[in-house]
Amino acid sequence: MQPLYIVKIGGNIIDDEKKLSSFLKAFAVIEDKKILVHGGGKLATKLAGKMKVEQKLIDGRRITDAETLKIVTMVYAGYVNKNIVAQLQRFACNAMGLCGVDGDLILAHKRKHPAIDFGYVGDVDAVNVPLLKNLLEQNLSVVFAPITHDMSGQLLNTNADTIAQELAKAMSSEYEVKLIYSFEKAGVLLDADDESTLINKINPAYYRQLKAEEKIFAGMIPKLDNAFAALNSGVNEVIIGKAENLVALIAGTSGTTITNE
Amino acid sequence: MQPLYIVKIGGNIIDDEKKLSSFLKAFAVIEDKKILVHGGGKLATKLAGKMKVEQKLIDGRRITDAETLKIVTMVYAGYVNKNIVAQLQRFACNAMGLCGVDGDLILAHKRKHPAIDFGYVGDVDAVNVPLLKNLLEQNLSVVFAPITHDMSGQLLNTNADTIAQELAKAMSSEYEVKLIYSFEKAGVLLDADDESTLINKINPAYYRQLKAEEKIFAGMIPKLDNAFAALNSGVNEVIIGKAENLVALIAGTSGTTITNE
Repeated sequence: MQPLYIVKIGGNIIDDEKKLSSFLKAFAVIEDKKILVHGGGKLATKLAGKMKVEQKLIDGRRITDAETLKIVTMVYAGYVNKNIVAQLQRFACNAMGLCGVDGDLILAHKRKHPAIDFGYVGDVDAVNVPLLKNLLEQNLSVVFAPITHDMSGQLLNTNADTIAQELAKAMSSEYEVKLIYSFEKAGVLLDADDESTLINKINPAYYRQLKAEEKIFAGMIPKLDNAFAALNSGVNEVIIGKAENLVALIAGTSGTTITNE
Repeated sequence: MQPLYIVKIGGNIIDDEKKLSSFLKAFAVIEDKKILVHGGGKLATKLAGKMKVEQKLIDGRRITDAETLKIVTMVYAGYVNKNIVAQLQRFACNAMGLCGVDGDLILAHKRKHPAIDFGYVGDVDAVNVPLLKNLLEQNLSVVFAPITHDMSGQLLNTNADTIAQELAKAMSSEYEVKLIYSFEKAGVLLDADDESTLINKINPAYYRQLKAEEKIFAGMIPKLDNAFAALNSGVNEVIIGKAENLVALIAGTSGTTITNE
């Protein structure tokens, strides 16, 4: 199977014009098939402020009411998505900006929760693998905004990390998928404040040891659990590291590689 | 050649939830290949008001400064586009929402004008016919927001009527294109205030006669000139009429058909 890179770009890069441009320049030159997944950084919050739409958080999680859904649809699927695509075109990468409703690429359902009403938040049910494959085979690089739909006319807000993971799992039936989470940190660190403590490679045995010795930052555990879940669903490799180092992340010389081997 | 319907939907329908829904239901059941082109109605102006971005008009034409471009990108390519696609999915029409930057579908350049700086307004240079054809052949219905790009990373605001016409001209090399402008009027009227004076069919000879006898509403002349220009560039038929009557417009039993025959 041929390789497919699925790259999730962190919000801090989207908020920084220079960093974003240099990241996209690096993404554009990846010769293999590739998908970029983005959120909206602080732009959605800023726009909500200007429009005087109050942002509701429960347990640190944003509640997507109707007005917030409107804002994230505008910012993620409109402004951020089309500007990223325009820059990729400039860097000679033929990109196409889409979200889950387009071509029914990502079907979801409104989250059901016994205690919290998250509003218009979608949990993913299915990825339209044949259509996505067809687009990639035409040498299009697909840029995903984290909006999905439920086939009843309702758009839904879905976490961008989740979108990247669901795409990676689904596409692993057709490609050797490498899932890259690029963010502001160098990767998984033994000491969260010291980049020299970067762990280059984590396999299941080492992960068990790190957890047993309580050497891993608690906030990192859900991310790593998700990474191993992706590997167990057919994803080839998960790489976590700095967006600025995208070329090195792909080469395997930067960041943390999570693998079953 | 097989038929392709390119339907431009007027702003007044986008502003009316019920009318939009019933229009999309009719669009969804068109069995032939189809493209929908939309603008943003009054939503962009409303959002600009909320964000306190002043709308500049010169000779009645909107100037697209950087902030206005941001707003139209959010409203047209984000909110309106994705909500139309969600509704079409609900009506079992597999739609894909795109704008000109996606897959380099519509390349444009920033308008040069000796006296007026229109800002980030794009005049169309080229349509990516092979990619658009490929999407249509996968039974996707393409929904276009009127945003283009110039291949240097710049998004541009382009008139939706122009987008529809340029798509129609370009796609006529591959399809028997029927271009439908759906708006609030019944079609071309002899008396603008009396729908019973609807002209069912206009060909070049009749158009010359109507103009010579000054029987045609002056505001209609640029639209008709454009329609004949489209016919002379290979478009099969241009139909102008009420959005509510989409099924009848397609059947040729409503609206005005402009034809070379």
